[in-house]
Amino acid sequence: MGTDAVILCIGRELLKGTSLDRNGHFMAGRITAHGFRVRRILILDDDPDDIGDGIRHALSLKPRFVITTGGLGPSFDDMTERCVAQALGLPLALHAEALEMVRASYHRQLLRELVDSDEITAEREKMAFLPAGAVPLENSIGAAPGARIEHEGTTLILLPGVPEEMQALFEEHVIPLLREVGPSLIHLERDLDYPGKDESSLSVVVNQISKSHPGVYVKSRVRGAGRNLSIRITLYSEGRDEQEVQGRLDAAEADLRARLGLERTR
Amino acid sequence: MGTDAVILCIGRELLKGTSLDRNGHFMAGRITAHGFRVRRILILDDDPDDIGDGIRHALSLKPRFVITTGGLGPSFDDMTERCVAQALGLPLALHAEALEMVRASYHRQLLRELVDSDEITAEREKMAFLPAGAVPLENSIGAAPGARIEHEGTTLILLPGVPEEMQALFEEHVIPLLREVGPSLIHLERDLDYPGKDESSLSVVVNQISKSHPGVYVKSRVRGAGRNLSIRITLYSEGRDEQEVQGRLDAAEADLRARLGLERTR
Repeated sequence: MGTDAVILCIGRELLKGTSLDRNGHFMAGRITAHGFRVRRILILDDDPDDIGDGIRHALSLKPRFVITTGGLGPSFDDMTERCVAQALGLPLALHAEALEMVRASYHRQLLRELVDSDEITAEREKMAFLPAGAVPLENSIGAAPGARIEHEGTTLILLPGVPEEMQALFEEHVIPLLREVGPSLIHLERDLDYPGKDESSLSVVVNQISKSHPGVYVKSRVRGAGRNLSIRITLYSEGRDEQEVQGRLDAAEADLRARLGLERTR
Repeated sequence: MGTDAVILCIGRELLKGTSLDRNGHFMAGRITAHGFRVRRILILDDDPDDIGDGIRHALSLKPRFVITTGGLGPSFDDMTERCVAQALGLPLALHAEALEMVRASYHRQLLRELVDSDEITAEREKMAFLPAGAVPLENSIGAAPGARIEHEGTTLILLPGVPEEMQALFEEHVIPLLREVGPSLIHLERDLDYPGKDESSLSVVVNQISKSHPGVYVKSRVRGAGRNLSIRITLYSEGRDEQEVQGRLDAAEADLRARLGLERTR
């Protein structure tokens, strides 16, 4: 199994320009640091066909992880569990442990006077319906539990969309899993800022570095506009041995600095 | 042809948590306001297989527009034109008008002392290679022209990834096109902030409103965390007649306010 992850961010507000999605960015940084490659991020509408299609598309890439965020709440347009169940050909079933989590959450919220009752209404119970075989993931902040499902070598993880809840579940449930199944690949990168403004002449040098250092990925990116342009060059490499990866980056960085006349500042 | 648009944001830095993509959000807001529905946003890696796969996936949704951002620069890892050409089965060809745009851009940049020479190197010329039949779109800020391609009822628009350049091309080339082919559908929405903190009991009301007002889409979304939770309810409707859409929203809003005991503040 590979080290790819696909992120699905679910919510109509993200497609209307109402809300800027930051969940994908947050998860991408944490997943990358743990040695996985985020292969793709999809932002999907609150629509069963779109969500189902997005899940099937993500699974078609055969990633190690598919992580969804959004659509786990009590609302009729929160439909992630249902769509995941359908895409995997699994029934949706009331999960006793998940129901206990929901019940405990509303009980805590009642004690803190955040809700008027801890009665389990149909809307609240809905959050405890998971695809059959899923493991619920406790939500320490909100009511909706997350879920983990194994499917043909891919682990699907369903997280809520409220950023604070997503981040809490990510730290509590996803990070330990990434550490456990981690590829033990070391991923290292270095940024160099180039004061020049002309990416096209820089790219001659960048292309040469890429060719002479095949284990190093070199990327240049223009920042700013007009007279405030600068170019950030990122050197990136990965491997099982940290010293080996560092050595490759050292060599490429030295070569790049020599060709660009950039002094080493650290 | 429908009113769907799919946005593809291309750049490895967006998948590593290095950069937060704001281009998708910007375009989604502008496209929505012009009466189109952003069906999906995909964030793709700088990898020919991934970009090709993303383009084919976007085209499979048969949208009216596919808009890409990123990957038009002079660098070896800027490969959007090449991947689009390949996905559409078109050759990549040096476009005389695009080459003139690139030439004129470097000439302007030389006059402003932003570059040392306006010579058309291979890296600069690369930006004038477009899929055969594409129309180049002038870039008033940077060097890389955009491109517009018609394909089986879908208009593909390729824009640069530097936000300032993307926004300039969007305003100059995409907005007039959206206006021209616009569905003349009116899209209206209203937000109501509900001071309550319990989305699950609110969702009973939201579900009732959805059922009694079939032309109105109702969405509730929790904002904040802990004691700072509030709930934003969005009412959304669309149609060809503005008064009709307003009327539907008026009725749903009045019904919602009555059920929640919310006073009208405007």
